[in-house]
Amino acid sequence: MSENKFSVIGKPQIKVDGTELVTGSAIFAGDLRFPGMLYGYAARAGVPAGKLKSVDVSKAVAVEGVVDVITSENIGGPNLMGIMPPFDQPVIAKGEIRYAGETIAFVVAESKRIAKKAALLVEADIEAYEPVLTVEEALADGARKIHPDGNVTFTRKLIKGDTAKGFEEADLILEDDFETSFQEHAYIEPEAVCVVPSGDNRLTVYASCQSPYHLRGQIAANIGLPMSKIKVIQAYTGGSFGGKDDVAAEIGILAGVAALRSGKPVMVAHDREESIIGSNFRHAIKIHYKTGLKNDGTITAREVKLLLDGGAYASESPFVVMKALIHAAGPYKIPNVFVESTAVYTNKTYAGAFRGFGVPQVTFAAESQLQEAADRLGLDALAIRRKNALRPGDATATSQVLNESVGIVQTIDAVGKRAAEIAAGSEDEADEQYLYGTGYASLIQGISNGAEGIDVVGASVQMSQDGSVLVGTGLTELGQGSRTVFAQIAAEVLGVPLDRVTARLVDTDSVHDSGATVASRATTTGGMAVFKAATEVKSSLLQMAALMFKTEAENIVLKEGFAVLVFDETARIPIPDVATAAYWTGFPLMNMAFSKAPDADYDHDTHQGKIYIAYNFGTHMMKIRVEKSTGKVEVLSHIASHDVGKVINPLGLTGQVEGASLIGYGLGHMEKIEYENGIIRNPNFADYAVPTIMDRIPTEVISVEEFNSTGPFGAKGVGEPPVAGATASFVNAISDAVGIRFRKIPVTRQDIMLALRNRGNQEE
Amino acid sequence: MSENKFSVIGKPQIKVDGTELVTGSAIFAGDLRFPGMLYGYAARAGVPAGKLKSVDVSKAVAVEGVVDVITSENIGGPNLMGIMPPFDQPVIAKGEIRYAGETIAFVVAESKRIAKKAALLVEADIEAYEPVLTVEEALADGARKIHPDGNVTFTRKLIKGDTAKGFEEADLILEDDFETSFQEHAYIEPEAVCVVPSGDNRLTVYASCQSPYHLRGQIAANIGLPMSKIKVIQAYTGGSFGGKDDVAAEIGILAGVAALRSGKPVMVAHDREESIIGSNFRHAIKIHYKTGLKNDGTITAREVKLLLDGGAYASESPFVVMKALIHAAGPYKIPNVFVESTAVYTNKTYAGAFRGFGVPQVTFAAESQLQEAADRLGLDALAIRRKNALRPGDATATSQVLNESVGIVQTIDAVGKRAAEIAAGSEDEADEQYLYGTGYASLIQGISNGAEGIDVVGASVQMSQDGSVLVGTGLTELGQGSRTVFAQIAAEVLGVPLDRVTARLVDTDSVHDSGATVASRATTTGGMAVFKAATEVKSSLLQMAALMFKTEAENIVLKEGFAVLVFDETARIPIPDVATAAYWTGFPLMNMAFSKAPDADYDHDTHQGKIYIAYNFGTHMMKIRVEKSTGKVEVLSHIASHDVGKVINPLGLTGQVEGASLIGYGLGHMEKIEYENGIIRNPNFADYAVPTIMDRIPTEVISVEEFNSTGPFGAKGVGEPPVAGATASFVNAISDAVGIRFRKIPVTRQDIMLALRNRGNQEE
Repeated sequence: MSENKFSVIGKPQIKVDGTELVTGSAIFAGDLRFPGMLYGYAARAGVPAGKLKSVDVSKAVAVEGVVDVITSENIGGPNLMGIMPPFDQPVIAKGEIRYAGETIAFVVAESKRIAKKAALLVEADIEAYEPVLTVEEALADGARKIHPDGNVTFTRKLIKGDTAKGFEEADLILEDDFETSFQEHAYIEPEAVCVVPSGDNRLTVYASCQSPYHLRGQIAANIGLPMSKIKVIQAYTGGSFGGKDDVAAEIGILAGVAALRSGKPVMVAHDREESIIGSNFRHAIKIHYKTGLKNDGTITAREVKLLLDGGAYASESPFVVMKALIHAAGPYKIPNVFVESTAVYTNKTYAGAFRGFGVPQVTFAAESQLQEAADRLGLDALAIRRKNALRPGDATATSQVLNESVGIVQTIDAVGKRAAEIAAGSEDEADEQYLYGTGYASLIQGISNGAEGIDVVGASVQMSQDGSVLVGTGLTELGQGSRTVFAQIAAEVLGVPLDRVTARLVDTDSVHDSGATVASRATTTGGMAVFKAATEVKSSLLQMAALMFKTEAENIVLKEGFAVLVFDETARIPIPDVATAAYWTGFPLMNMAFSKAPDADYDHDTHQGKIYIAYNFGTHMMKIRVEKSTGKVEVLSHIASHDVGKVINPLGLTGQVEGASLIGYGLGHMEKIEYENGIIRNPNFADYAVPTIMDRIPTEVISVEEFNSTGPFGAKGVGEPPVAGATASFVNAISDAVGIRFRKIPVTRQDIMLALRNRGNQEE
Repeated sequence: MSENKFSVIGKPQIKVDGTELVTGSAIFAGDLRFPGMLYGYAARAGVPAGKLKSVDVSKAVAVEGVVDVITSENIGGPNLMGIMPPFDQPVIAKGEIRYAGETIAFVVAESKRIAKKAALLVEADIEAYEPVLTVEEALADGARKIHPDGNVTFTRKLIKGDTAKGFEEADLILEDDFETSFQEHAYIEPEAVCVVPSGDNRLTVYASCQSPYHLRGQIAANIGLPMSKIKVIQAYTGGSFGGKDDVAAEIGILAGVAALRSGKPVMVAHDREESIIGSNFRHAIKIHYKTGLKNDGTITAREVKLLLDGGAYASESPFVVMKALIHAAGPYKIPNVFVESTAVYTNKTYAGAFRGFGVPQVTFAAESQLQEAADRLGLDALAIRRKNALRPGDATATSQVLNESVGIVQTIDAVGKRAAEIAAGSEDEADEQYLYGTGYASLIQGISNGAEGIDVVGASVQMSQDGSVLVGTGLTELGQGSRTVFAQIAAEVLGVPLDRVTARLVDTDSVHDSGATVASRATTTGGMAVFKAATEVKSSLLQMAALMFKTEAENIVLKEGFAVLVFDETARIPIPDVATAAYWTGFPLMNMAFSKAPDADYDHDTHQGKIYIAYNFGTHMMKIRVEKSTGKVEVLSHIASHDVGKVINPLGLTGQVEGASLIGYGLGHMEKIEYENGIIRNPNFADYAVPTIMDRIPTEVISVEEFNSTGPFGAKGVGEPPVAGATASFVNAISDAVGIRFRKIPVTRQDIMLALRNRGNQEE
């Protein structure tokens, strides 16, 4: 990290919302209580595919304490939801069942217990179909069409150069199949939304959600109210990772219909089973990689085919298709690239947004294959990555020339240096009890929406007459620390201590529609919006201070809570005094800024062009040991180096990298939704293994700061990228340790034991 | 009214919040319920003056269900409140009692019933002083000082020309004393505030209030939190009229302290008695007028002395002193004016803001004396007013030259024309049972804060992708219809039907500190802010539509819900389509504007200069009959003509004029707080007479529209001015009917009967 000329930026800051989170005073959506509140619970199909002939709710209605049972007939609007076209998902199934967790009726009762009891009495007459359970089945000739237009949800190609020519130039060509599993978001807090008729002919929606504006729009459309009649307030949100967008909308619509019908507040708070069977997953992907290299490690060509299992509905499959497509070539300068990426419908729970958004899956495959190439060519793991790594002036696989903020080489070198230090300090690794392995992986991940659509954020900064500051944005705090980052930016610009700044949760009434908090864009585009708004308020303060000092505004700086004369730093006026004077003189002390990331500009047939405003680059090293007798994995060290442009909050950055890495580690090692005939067999945390605090890995973060002109103070996002780095470095480490190449994740203890047994058999 | 070129502006619109108000679904602050909510009730001094030696709360604390009893020791901050300097009022009395309704302790309990019961057990050791009960006593030599600096709260002079010379030129000089009484605001909904610890280390304050920003600032200061940690949301407010500023702050601070100490929501909802004894009144004023006139009615000089009884604390007395001072000369061109206006402390409930703000009292006196002059000079009531009335290019008593929007002559002529029509249609008025009388009055009232301070308003306008619009401002809806006006302005600018626009209640987080909703400034400055914000959003829509039409923005208009090509009005794109396209193209669809009224600029010693940005002018005629046997008054007709610049909502305007007139009628005829040794003897609506719906007077509104360039579409405010017109025309009418001049208001039935008896005695 470079020398820091800032007061608040770049210094470790405890989360501004940390106190209420650790003391338990933070109010989550499911904690809310209102007089007369009702509770909703969904009756679900229970079969993965079939014709829904009728739904009989009479027994449910008869249960004492049941207030309403809502069927598809009762949805005022189109009964369709979705984050993006094709909006193919009914809120309540009508006519056809496409996955087992689909809602067929929604019971509203005086307590959740009653609602759940009654939901079990809803009877559906379903003529079961043979479910379509794999992407291959879905694409087979004559396959039953899950949707009228067939089973291909979305498909796109990336074409750069001439891969045939590239393979001709190669000395080594590897061609392999890889596979990943569905991953559950597994946030601590399941989904919860409470819709309250607020007495002003409007509805107030309190939600644990990722995209309050999506929620507003989808509720409005489906209950037939103008969007301006709905106010969404984000409640404290205990994790989201992409998961609380679709599902929040689904339960928000249901609660909204119920609230409108009953005139009472309606709460829907999922329990864990609902959270798993009724919510989307990370896409399981069938991956084919073919890479050509010269003997010196230079990659000459890469061909990739991706088949994403999108489950029953589109959700964000189209975006994930694109993101996987764009990142499949990795952080490397490869002249010839061809990628085909296709999402397919199956009769399973739909897949959608999940931290990393397709990039972890392709990075795992790409870096596995690259590592195998290095091994075959006898090249050093980091050297082969360094040789191919993008440098300023180079073009990505989409032919986007990167002129700044290209720190991949620096992350490779940082990891190399630290790895050498660790190696120097460690004992000989061979022993009887354990197998040791080391894995490396490098990655690229686009920041901001880029190809996926417009990236706009609204932010407001309000200084009160006492000099305290309130920051609001349209982006959600999901645990990632964005409120702290936004508060820091405002504090830095306005020259006040961080504890004078409050960053609030989203209220859709207050800030410009800012889309979804996705794509690692909060710090970048969101931070720019806060920066702009704060700079306007700063301008008012400087003008006022100039009047008070009888000088020009450019002779004044704001720092340490004072307006200070640059010529004579002992001449200082407390900012509260400046703010009070500014108010009474008529200088505005609040500004709402609008920040728009530069547009993507590319050919949609080939995905050649400018896609993202900036890219995060990273290199990970993971060192593990495996207990031979049990297959138990222990991560001995994990180094994650990322080029983040500029560190805003070192503590928050560490938290983001640690958290994302643990999700990546779970994806690589543990997590797997298990289906049996289209029914999820492990819808709980006893049977679905997710890393707990006991599985925490010793992540060490090394930041690289290559200035990014599209972000505040040069920063760029880091929320998603470490997932890919951790998954890929883990798989390379375990493959190294066990001595065989794993091409399907997760690589579980069972898989390891099986591999060890096979190896033992072979060795015997 | 001029011909209307607008779609929404100038057309009668039902209040946008009418539905919830008449159906009862609107949620008022006192209706709110939160889990674990506590209730506060104040123990009050009960004696008007004394040394507060100690307060014993032990018996109150011991009551079952009492959670906390707060004394002055427990206020974290300075324990001082007030809207403006000198901030001389403690939240909880300490050391000294200055009026009987003063809070000495605040009981917090599980129910209001328990809190009230316990409050009666609070014991105070008070060494009673002889109370200072009149302004004369307060100003007498050797009077006990109610505050350390003495008993004069605030005093100012207005000096124009040379009154001695002016009186020399006069043919007739009248010199009289007048007197007005304390008037209670008497809103339907008493004061209520609920403070909720909102789980995010902030407090959310739901309040029936006039000035959410004052509330925020005063709570913050007194509980020791930064202002940014407090969010004030205005609840539906059932009237305020100036009254819910100080008192909302007082109970907000108490509830805030209690909420912070208990960690629980705390409700304070006044009952009627608390609302009367614990809240401020309209100032009772001792008024001395001396007016010189020529035989043709030309006013040559006017001298006025005002002694305002401000009660125990300053509240807004300084502003009322100034407002009364500035308006004492009336809407006339008078070359020589001298006014001295002084507010005085007494041991009574403090006086503060009340619709009209000093203008009704001086207008009553001025117009009484002018009528008497007209009678003595044998001049027609309207002719004498017309002769002296300000015309464009004339200077006011503050020497402010008015170049536009000076419609006083037009209101006189409008009333004259209508009065003639009424007279032509009415029977001979002499009969046995009734006495008949007609009164006229003209008035001027400055719009916006003017001399009283900065006038800034923030407003936000947000169009959603469905083309619906949300408008927010920092000004409160108190029943006056400002939400409707703001919605109309946004609808007009954006070319959408009014039902696509929602105007929301104030949330201090969302909009720039807009000060208090006072001084008839909402439509003017507030409307300008909405106009500006909507115009920015319109600009985005026009730019987008220009791209869609492949033309320039200036070739497009927004109307009837469409973007329409001016060359070919059949070419139209629905605004929702334009909005959606604009969002996805990156044109901002929300704007927060800041509107600042032009500054006042005047000499503080003489009040000569530019004071207000615009003035409302009005002329009223009231025709009454008095039943001889009972003194019962019946208003036969009431014509209220006002120059409002431009009518935004004729229905709302009528409501405002009717409501203000009824308050003025109450002030003139009925309302009077009665003290006995400093104790209020009529703290309820059985004993304090306030006009009910049965006393409604048949107000007929005639609008004059003289364009005002400082308001939206030329509009200027009308919230307060009719009060003065109704009071003054009533007093002239009753004086005409009874045949003696009443110089003290209210002129009650008792006063009328007494006067009739005296007249009878004289006649006998």
